[in-house]
Amino acid sequence: MAPPPVQQHHSSPANATSNGIANGHINGNSSWSTIPSSIVANRTVNPIRVALSRPVPPQRTSESTKPVLSLSLGDPTVFGNFDTHPETVKAVEKALHSFKFNGYPPATGYLQTRQAIAKKYSLQDSPPLTADDVVLTSGCSGAIEMVIGVLCNEGQNILIPRPGFSLYKTVAASKGVETRSYNLLAEKNWEVDLDHMASLIDSNTGAILINNPSNPCGSNFSKQHLQDIIALCESYKIPLISDEIYADMVFVGEKFYPAASLTKTVPVLTLGGLAKQWMVPGWRVGWVLVYDHQTGLLNDVCKGLGALATLINGPNSLIEAAIPDIFANVPESFLKETINSLQAHAELCAKLLKPIPGLNVIVPQGAMYMMVVLDIDRFEGIDDDVSFYQMLKWEEHVEVIPGQCFDMPNCFRIVITPPKDVLASAIERIGQFCARYYK
Amino acid sequence: MAPPPVQQHHSSPANATSNGIANGHINGNSSWSTIPSSIVANRTVNPIRVALSRPVPPQRTSESTKPVLSLSLGDPTVFGNFDTHPETVKAVEKALHSFKFNGYPPATGYLQTRQAIAKKYSLQDSPPLTADDVVLTSGCSGAIEMVIGVLCNEGQNILIPRPGFSLYKTVAASKGVETRSYNLLAEKNWEVDLDHMASLIDSNTGAILINNPSNPCGSNFSKQHLQDIIALCESYKIPLISDEIYADMVFVGEKFYPAASLTKTVPVLTLGGLAKQWMVPGWRVGWVLVYDHQTGLLNDVCKGLGALATLINGPNSLIEAAIPDIFANVPESFLKETINSLQAHAELCAKLLKPIPGLNVIVPQGAMYMMVVLDIDRFEGIDDDVSFYQMLKWEEHVEVIPGQCFDMPNCFRIVITPPKDVLASAIERIGQFCARYYK
Repeated sequence: MAPPPVQQHHSSPANATSNGIANGHINGNSSWSTIPSSIVANRTVNPIRVALSRPVPPQRTSESTKPVLSLSLGDPTVFGNFDTHPETVKAVEKALHSFKFNGYPPATGYLQTRQAIAKKYSLQDSPPLTADDVVLTSGCSGAIEMVIGVLCNEGQNILIPRPGFSLYKTVAASKGVETRSYNLLAEKNWEVDLDHMASLIDSNTGAILINNPSNPCGSNFSKQHLQDIIALCESYKIPLISDEIYADMVFVGEKFYPAASLTKTVPVLTLGGLAKQWMVPGWRVGWVLVYDHQTGLLNDVCKGLGALATLINGPNSLIEAAIPDIFANVPESFLKETINSLQAHAELCAKLLKPIPGLNVIVPQGAMYMMVVLDIDRFEGIDDDVSFYQMLKWEEHVEVIPGQCFDMPNCFRIVITPPKDVLASAIERIGQFCARYYK
Repeated sequence: MAPPPVQQHHSSPANATSNGIANGHINGNSSWSTIPSSIVANRTVNPIRVALSRPVPPQRTSESTKPVLSLSLGDPTVFGNFDTHPETVKAVEKALHSFKFNGYPPATGYLQTRQAIAKKYSLQDSPPLTADDVVLTSGCSGAIEMVIGVLCNEGQNILIPRPGFSLYKTVAASKGVETRSYNLLAEKNWEVDLDHMASLIDSNTGAILINNPSNPCGSNFSKQHLQDIIALCESYKIPLISDEIYADMVFVGEKFYPAASLTKTVPVLTLGGLAKQWMVPGWRVGWVLVYDHQTGLLNDVCKGLGALATLINGPNSLIEAAIPDIFANVPESFLKETINSLQAHAELCAKLLKPIPGLNVIVPQGAMYMMVVLDIDRFEGIDDDVSFYQMLKWEEHVEVIPGQCFDMPNCFRIVITPPKDVLASAIERIGQFCARYYK
């Protein structure tokens, strides 16, 4: 082999410089400098981490010695009281033992899996979904990444809810897509402020995203309200992204409407997954459902989703393979029992939180969360929700998520999935804390 | 609720137009037009699909009626002769039955999993890796996406091998990162043309990527050759990405050197995963190993990887949880037996292919592939490798991958994992095909 050209180049940095490439990695001083991470990585910011890492001001008291009670993590599995159904486990076991599902599925997912999902999520009085309308993703997070990625170019904007799940902003920011947050109105059970939503739309709006039932609100939109949102999409000819990861998880007296079921014209990309309904968020299997009502308006988008799917080649093959069995064999009663438990938890939380001065409870209609709005001005020495969170954590060892993590100051979110005794103890401490500072 | 503002906007398209927002989604004619998919999605192109979908010219013969034999798919599991080890299955089963690993792992992966990976891939005579140096990804594809994403900005370039795995280009293109392909030299067992590699570097080069052992070449670089490549990185101060998904899968007489083991200064991001060595590509669990030799040069990159990991929140939790057991319990003999089989397959293929006129076989040193260079000028009426592929498929029902899919015209790749009788039959047909057209 010829002597490596390395030496030659190494000894001629002047040459490199004379070519105008003195900056960047090519330099003459032969020493390394820190490798920078990309613009994309730098703008991939998790607002939760930012808010929670705000420096803690000097505390007035010594730290609590009580055991930590966390109402912060939106993961129903952490306390062991919401296990997945044994049939879910059995379905994965069957796939595992078959040795038939260890290879690469197609990038968008196994045909039989997409068929099962298409069948389950086809809508009454609408053309049935086909396997081609389904793309499997690495969790619902992967679905969010993919739909924002397929609908929006850098410099475009997307409308997202406030308060809302922080990942929308993180994903959009990573792609250089501007997020515009439309207000949800606490006094209207977190319905969309439609005037505000409309005021944010311009010719660069690539999509409107809704999340129903909602994290962090636990709200469930009425048919009429969804129709109003859809009418806005229709009016401005903007496709709708409907994050329905909490689909069907609504309490007695509520009815869940898939957004796509309420329109024959507005193209809707619906996001879902196994995470919440089947209690397996760590399994990372989600999906995008393409509802274009046989208009063909989403043909390009479908192709684009297929292209983006090739980048990481889909989620885990075993879980994919298990999905038809999971849908067929997990009894309907499982979801019903989950909902009943969640509702009982929600009612307990509401009952215990409501009497606490300075807290305004918006009773959830579904999902696994509850938002509490703070009369922040009535709390002496507590400036905002992050201070509230920090002091509560320090003095009572109770963890909630401050509203700023959802772009909504002066409220906090609790998850309602912990066992009732944990919820009750935590709320008792919250009550003691509020009593100390409420004036 | 106030009447939705929808109607108001809907009835004032002129207003919208007068604001100069007549283009895009906001239009006055109240009719939908096709929703375009994003620039990113459009530039996410799989070269394999492009090459394989080239229109087939009129064929000279009628289509073969023989059963189709595919030597195209780089998935060792499809024929059932390379199953994963029972201990791998057992480890996943244990995680599944524990009900402890259904929730969200940390975005970069469970601590115990990253610790196990760090331990396994720590290098002799180097500072040991820690869990913080490991990021779990959605397959090795996810690792490729993440490292290109963290090291390169839009407009920068990355050096990749030719012939090379097509996903490098697809991922880079999706991010607006230019790929510059350095030549691998068939006559030198697919070693890098170092002069050519050096000539491609400029101040916008974000990384040099190597793939060793190689897909599609089946090559394994010598220690000296790796040192030469590393010297180039050192000279230009460019970090190295070493895709080592086929790590340790080299034949008797060969030794595999992790690139990071041969430098104390060049920052190396090594990519790996369970896919090939443990025969479970569909499980989609890969990783990035950050080797910065305690220089701190990759501190920012590490943070960036952590940020990017939050976008899809890691791979499947069950498999993550199983990894420590898989490493501990799958005996070393499993890999040894795999390699012995692969080597026997490679030798058979070489023996059968070598006598065929017009074919130049480069005997592989590892991995699961073999490249065959065509004397294309000697084949009458066959213009290039894609024509060769199309006609072979039509006339003999044998599928290979034409070299253009790897950016390398006039050769083809076969996978050596199919059972020996399949390999032998397929190569016999290739021989008959070549005999018809060789002049």
